Amino acid sequence: MSNRLLTTQRENLKLDVAIVGAGASGLYSGYRLLNGTDKNGNKLNLDVGIFDLSDRIGGRLESIKLPGMNVVGELGGMRYMTEQKIVTALIEDVFSTQYALKPIDFPMGDANHHLFYLRKQRFFANRFSQAKITGEHFETRYFVEDKFKGKSSDDIFTEIISEVLEADGYSLKQIQESPYAREVWNEVKQKLVYRFPGPYENMLVYKIGFWNLLKDRSSQECYEFLAQAGGYYSNTINWNAAEAFPYMVGDFASDAVKYKTIEGGYDQVLTCLADDFIQKGGKIRIKNRLKTFRKNPDNSSEYKYILTFYNLEKKDTWEVEAKDIILGMPKRSLELLDQDNFFFNIDTQQKLHNNMNSVTPEPSFKILLGFEDPWWEKGLGAKAGESITDLPMRQCYYFGVDPKNSHSLFLASYNDMRTVSFWQALEKGEKFQTTETRLVRAKNTIYPNYEHASKVMVDEVMSQVKELHGPAIEIPNPYTSAFKDWTKDPYGGGYHAWKNNYKVWEVMPYMRHPYKEERIFIAGEAYSDQQGWVEGAFCVAEHIMREKYELECPSWLDQDYYIGW
Amino acid sequence: MSNRLLTTQRENLKLDVAIVGAGASGLYSGYRLLNGTDKNGNKLNLDVGIFDLSDRIGGRLESIKLPGMNVVGELGGMRYMTEQKIVTALIEDVFSTQYALKPIDFPMGDANHHLFYLRKQRFFANRFSQAKITGEHFETRYFVEDKFKGKSSDDIFTEIISEVLEADGYSLKQIQESPYAREVWNEVKQKLVYRFPGPYENMLVYKIGFWNLLKDRSSQECYEFLAQAGGYYSNTINWNAAEAFPYMVGDFASDAVKYKTIEGGYDQVLTCLADDFIQKGGKIRIKNRLKTFRKNPDNSSEYKYILTFYNLEKKDTWEVEAKDIILGMPKRSLELLDQDNFFFNIDTQQKLHNNMNSVTPEPSFKILLGFEDPWWEKGLGAKAGESITDLPMRQCYYFGVDPKNSHSLFLASYNDMRTVSFWQALEKGEKFQTTETRLVRAKNTIYPNYEHASKVMVDEVMSQVKELHGPAIEIPNPYTSAFKDWTKDPYGGGYHAWKNNYKVWEVMPYMRHPYKEERIFIAGEAYSDQQGWVEGAFCVAEHIMREKYELECPSWLDQDYYIGW
Repeated sequence: MSNRLLTTQRENLKLDVAIVGAGASGLYSGYRLLNGTDKNGNKLNLDVGIFDLSDRIGGRLESIKLPGMNVVGELGGMRYMTEQKIVTALIEDVFSTQYALKPIDFPMGDANHHLFYLRKQRFFANRFSQAKITGEHFETRYFVEDKFKGKSSDDIFTEIISEVLEADGYSLKQIQESPYAREVWNEVKQKLVYRFPGPYENMLVYKIGFWNLLKDRSSQECYEFLAQAGGYYSNTINWNAAEAFPYMVGDFASDAVKYKTIEGGYDQVLTCLADDFIQKGGKIRIKNRLKTFRKNPDNSSEYKYILTFYNLEKKDTWEVEAKDIILGMPKRSLELLDQDNFFFNIDTQQKLHNNMNSVTPEPSFKILLGFEDPWWEKGLGAKAGESITDLPMRQCYYFGVDPKNSHSLFLASYNDMRTVSFWQALEKGEKFQTTETRLVRAKNTIYPNYEHASKVMVDEVMSQVKELHGPAIEIPNPYTSAFKDWTKDPYGGGYHAWKNNYKVWEVMPYMRHPYKEERIFIAGEAYSDQQGWVEGAFCVAEHIMREKYELECPSWLDQDYYIGW
Repeated sequence: MSNRLLTTQRENLKLDVAIVGAGASGLYSGYRLLNGTDKNGNKLNLDVGIFDLSDRIGGRLESIKLPGMNVVGELGGMRYMTEQKIVTALIEDVFSTQYALKPIDFPMGDANHHLFYLRKQRFFANRFSQAKITGEHFETRYFVEDKFKGKSSDDIFTEIISEVLEADGYSLKQIQESPYAREVWNEVKQKLVYRFPGPYENMLVYKIGFWNLLKDRSSQECYEFLAQAGGYYSNTINWNAAEAFPYMVGDFASDAVKYKTIEGGYDQVLTCLADDFIQKGGKIRIKNRLKTFRKNPDNSSEYKYILTFYNLEKKDTWEVEAKDIILGMPKRSLELLDQDNFFFNIDTQQKLHNNMNSVTPEPSFKILLGFEDPWWEKGLGAKAGESITDLPMRQCYYFGVDPKNSHSLFLASYNDMRTVSFWQALEKGEKFQTTETRLVRAKNTIYPNYEHASKVMVDEVMSQVKELHGPAIEIPNPYTSAFKDWTKDPYGGGYHAWKNNYKVWEVMPYMRHPYKEERIFIAGEAYSDQQGWVEGAFCVAEHIMREKYELECPSWLDQDYYIGW
């Protein structure tokens, strides 16, 4: 596929639509523009080009293969839920036929074989649920309120959220059981009032930060437990509490959330979009960084905008004319564009900047290791899923075993927010050398398409993996490694979270089309109501397709599927 | 003074030196350019203008007066040390005569009357030192290693730093006792090697992050104790460990660090610089934001640069020609300038961007409250100094009492890094109304020159202040409030910290003068070796004065004073 990507510039390129960003929202937009039909069943027949500054497509999906095994490592997004109907239909209907994509379960394993290691206390993840049954007095080292003692972070999140809903006359169970759960949540998020005495009494919940609220319903100590035992610091940053509610209680009316992915790598959902786009005549140009865009000084031209790109191979700028622009970009990428052009001008376009600031990019970092054998099966009985700690590694995932040869993939650290700087300091320096295994000849293991970890990073993460698992579990040395820091430009973070005090239901449509008199649209996960998910990016792009290009709902999608605000 | 600041633009303004930023480094540069003499004793006789985007001067020093008391509140930097000879000489010699500035002690109070409240454990700050004497077995709720049990964070920092120095053949005591302690530290920082087995063995300490190192010498749990009991999260972020060493052991050869400030407000050191600058013919233009600068297309002009300012009153751009530019700005302000001009161009000037990235801005946040009486004297016996907690308020300072009327100033929260977002979420909403006291008529209390806290912010911080102090101490309601979030543009943070892996001794001179062929200099605290201190900004500016303007050491300064790299 990648040999069909262009890196070149072209003289006098004129486009109906210039899409900037070849991630989920940009590729989906391109795919829809070339496949979609209007209400008369006609295609749009547009010249569409997609541009990306990277030397690859896929944005924050990136599936890689480490040497010696056929298990795919996910440096970015790694799964979807079947309630997410656009991504599910594309993978399980459209591309399963067209490209023989094979959806598979993303197993989360069994808590009986997962560990917690918090404040130096090591215990099995099933201890919370067992204590519920046996009545055993199980305590962590967090000095939480009596009512929360012995409860898991999931239980406490649900209890607090239920309590806040009930105090204002709502029922979590009823919302979750509704066939229109997402619609109902979107109503509740706008109206819910916090009904407890104290600093936040009678405030609308969307005006409260989630940290503020959790602390108010428990204590800072309990908040620390929730933040650390929950695995992700990003879930408990001080984001919009109303947005956090449906996110934290396990989503969209389904009791048992099931994760899925694609055999051979989740990023195939995007390469399929790209491939179809190119087959239908679209062009994708990588290694071309958008610098700025301006209005065409020729007022009579139907190509209203001139985009200036920097070509990273030629180290030179060039220009493209376009009628429409779709910026398929996260917040940080938008900020890296010229903030002085007519669109971003910081002195005059304060509403745009205020709304751009409605989300926080969330730093995230992953370290992958390859082992000759899945030591976690023998030592821990784990087949899949994760263990969680307050050490800077935060979470590890027992990812997968090559059924043919037992070489095994281990997500040694999936960490975010305040822990990312711990690992960034270890990025430089001598690389960890891939060693020979019974399958791997080290000299053949230069994989240039991802970043290998440094020796010090591997040594440090291994020391934490050993501390988490304890002396009883024997852990061999890894033979290979990779890492990804999504915090770096142009991403700014792995995902985004809404700030409190913003009316998300107003900001989302605004960001999709900031100025009515211009044909410039912003798409992506950042300003979506399923942040951190491919589906969020797809829904925002789908909105743009329907509102701004008058495309009908695609035939492969449930016609009643709710695509959010 | 402020009525002598201009806000206007002027046609055809041509300057020898355009200084951008009226904070510590910019004002000091202006003062020195108009007062300094070259080796022949001659003044430079230059046309110098200073510009700032704010509606005030002073940068990150901002002293305010709350209604009803003569105690000054410091929203920004609040003190200096007498080892810092430039700031000390200016205050205690130059301006004490010229402007009758009065240096006063900045008292830190008595640990016998200060509290810790960590993981819900409340104890007096003297417990650590008492336990040393009595042999009492004092334990916190942190599961630290046996060797660190019962020790204060200061003791543990010093122990770890000593240990690392000794393992490589240095002695902390010897370094601290040297009359050239700062010079010695600057040698040690370059050479010190980490001599302990594990991931970091034999690495140069400046290549290691301070968090990485502290965890390696103790544990993540002990690191949490150090981060939380130390009061400032910024001290223990993963910054350059070698830079952290002298910073953490209490500085520069002095056993008993004594803090001082200026009666009536610390920012007077900067208003004096500004006043003298204006008296000597310099002009300061506030409310003028630098957007970009370019080379003069007229090659024959001696005014090599054209600066474009945005005038915030006229809402219009205008231009200034200059021979030299001094950018007296922190990192974030530099990033907010046009990153596509010849100086910053991100495609071609990678060394500049790499070096700009050598420091991390550190978010910081302060909330001030006014009380009718100093409740902490009666309740706690405290006269000054701070109490520390892991609650999001982190530190409070018992700031001062108006001797005439007992109205009292309380720094209710001085917090930084990860806690700042807790408070940012409370910035909006209904303001806390100043209430009447026996001295304050509420209707006369609109002080427009600082930001008043919201009701929810005051309620939340009061609930934490009460939790910290416990039920035995009675705390009345405050009558007035103020807050400052230094994280906001254009500051990016209250102060900065060097990242590991950078050779600070090379980056500092580079940043002062990035391109030898240009007369463009960067000054400020950000790229100094006394980050977080006014002295850091002064030393960088003093370097520029001596190196680039060939000024002699000023007569009022110790001629042998070491101004760093």
